[in-house]
Amino acid sequence: MNAYDDKHFFEEYCKLREGENYNDILETPAMLSLLDFVEGLRILDIGCGFGKTSALLSDMGAQYVLGIDISERMIAKAGSEYKRRHVEYRVLPAEDISEIGEEFDLVWSSLCFHYVKDLEQLLKDIDSILRDKGTLIFSVEHPLSTASYDGYYTNGPDGWTGYHLSDYGMEGERRSTWFDTEIVTYHRMMSTILNMLVRSGFAVEHVLEPLPDDAAIKRLPRMIREYQKPSFAVFKAIKR
Amino acid sequence: MNAYDDKHFFEEYCKLREGENYNDILETPAMLSLLDFVEGLRILDIGCGFGKTSALLSDMGAQYVLGIDISERMIAKAGSEYKRRHVEYRVLPAEDISEIGEEFDLVWSSLCFHYVKDLEQLLKDIDSILRDKGTLIFSVEHPLSTASYDGYYTNGPDGWTGYHLSDYGMEGERRSTWFDTEIVTYHRMMSTILNMLVRSGFAVEHVLEPLPDDAAIKRLPRMIREYQKPSFAVFKAIKR
Repeated sequence: MNAYDDKHFFEEYCKLREGENYNDILETPAMLSLLDFVEGLRILDIGCGFGKTSALLSDMGAQYVLGIDISERMIAKAGSEYKRRHVEYRVLPAEDISEIGEEFDLVWSSLCFHYVKDLEQLLKDIDSILRDKGTLIFSVEHPLSTASYDGYYTNGPDGWTGYHLSDYGMEGERRSTWFDTEIVTYHRMMSTILNMLVRSGFAVEHVLEPLPDDAAIKRLPRMIREYQKPSFAVFKAIKR
Repeated sequence: MNAYDDKHFFEEYCKLREGENYNDILETPAMLSLLDFVEGLRILDIGCGFGKTSALLSDMGAQYVLGIDISERMIAKAGSEYKRRHVEYRVLPAEDISEIGEEFDLVWSSLCFHYVKDLEQLLKDIDSILRDKGTLIFSVEHPLSTASYDGYYTNGPDGWTGYHLSDYGMEGERRSTWFDTEIVTYHRMMSTILNMLVRSGFAVEHVLEPLPDDAAIKRLPRMIREYQKPSFAVFKAIKR
């Protein structure tokens, strides 16, 4: 069972996403800023969660959105809360996308790929279901955030003074506990992600390490820490 | 006057480069690993220093190497110690390469670009003197190394336990003291360097954050720290 299908974890996660949060203030706007247009696109949303962004992309004019997620609870919530006429939700792990048998103009994935063990295989699978010159936009937990086995912010007299970084060069599995549930993520260096994209047939078009502006910091003051160590990395790549 | 033309600084720098050092063990091999071939190439080496690599590229079969450096002392040393028949050394700042008026197959630059204030302009200048599909290979101090105003390693009971990182998101000037001389470098996030490359007409081909192998650590044990925070980032890009 994946963590998102654990009842307690799922409830806590939903609470977290209800309030002011990093995803809505920082990560989703960064992802959206990389979109040239949405009208008429056939979109695959990998790790769609409860469907908020799949629905948004549909509302923005997508022809069709297929949202997939490994979690049955997520897909159930998506189907009830973010139902749209041209959006379909399906329980499917990222590893099985070659089963879909359709071609897409855009593959979108928010904060999912750091859970994927064989990212290079996934990128190759994405390349094969994208049309020529199709676009991949995805975000991950920033490599600086996944690196440390015991990363922590250090508090100085003037506020956040830095971050204790370690093991950036030690790629591989990281185990952590989130709402009493063990989560496994995979740490990869920035260079590794970029080289996997190139080897899988993509041209790197844009990379973002999003930082909060003054308005964002006013809404969520602890976001000032993003200037010490960003939480997210966002990539836009084009199928060559 | 640039720091490398300060007599004391220059002498200390030369001593540093004589012993076992990070450049020879880690950075130069990483740069060389990105070369497909050298035979017959016309190469511009920006920030060639005392010419060691310009001479090496010539010895590897380059048709012609032009090594440029802002420092008169460096160019004088290059001309005397690394003289080669098909290598020319010239005092010229990176900012003035459009003056050269020649076309190159490969532009090579080792640990120079973090001293350049307007990197995007330089990348555009490089793009304009490269032949179609020409290659740019360069290294910089890793953004994790240039970031912190006061970065330091933390020593734990088991050795190096991490690095105090700060201000990764605060791009711009960094002043530090090296052999009693003030050095100005420019911190840029990884994403900024990549986006500048794309905007300047390059396709990103390969990125390396080189790590030492066991043999390297045996030669220089403190290199184990590279696994906490790499010192170098190396980029290979192709003119589109």
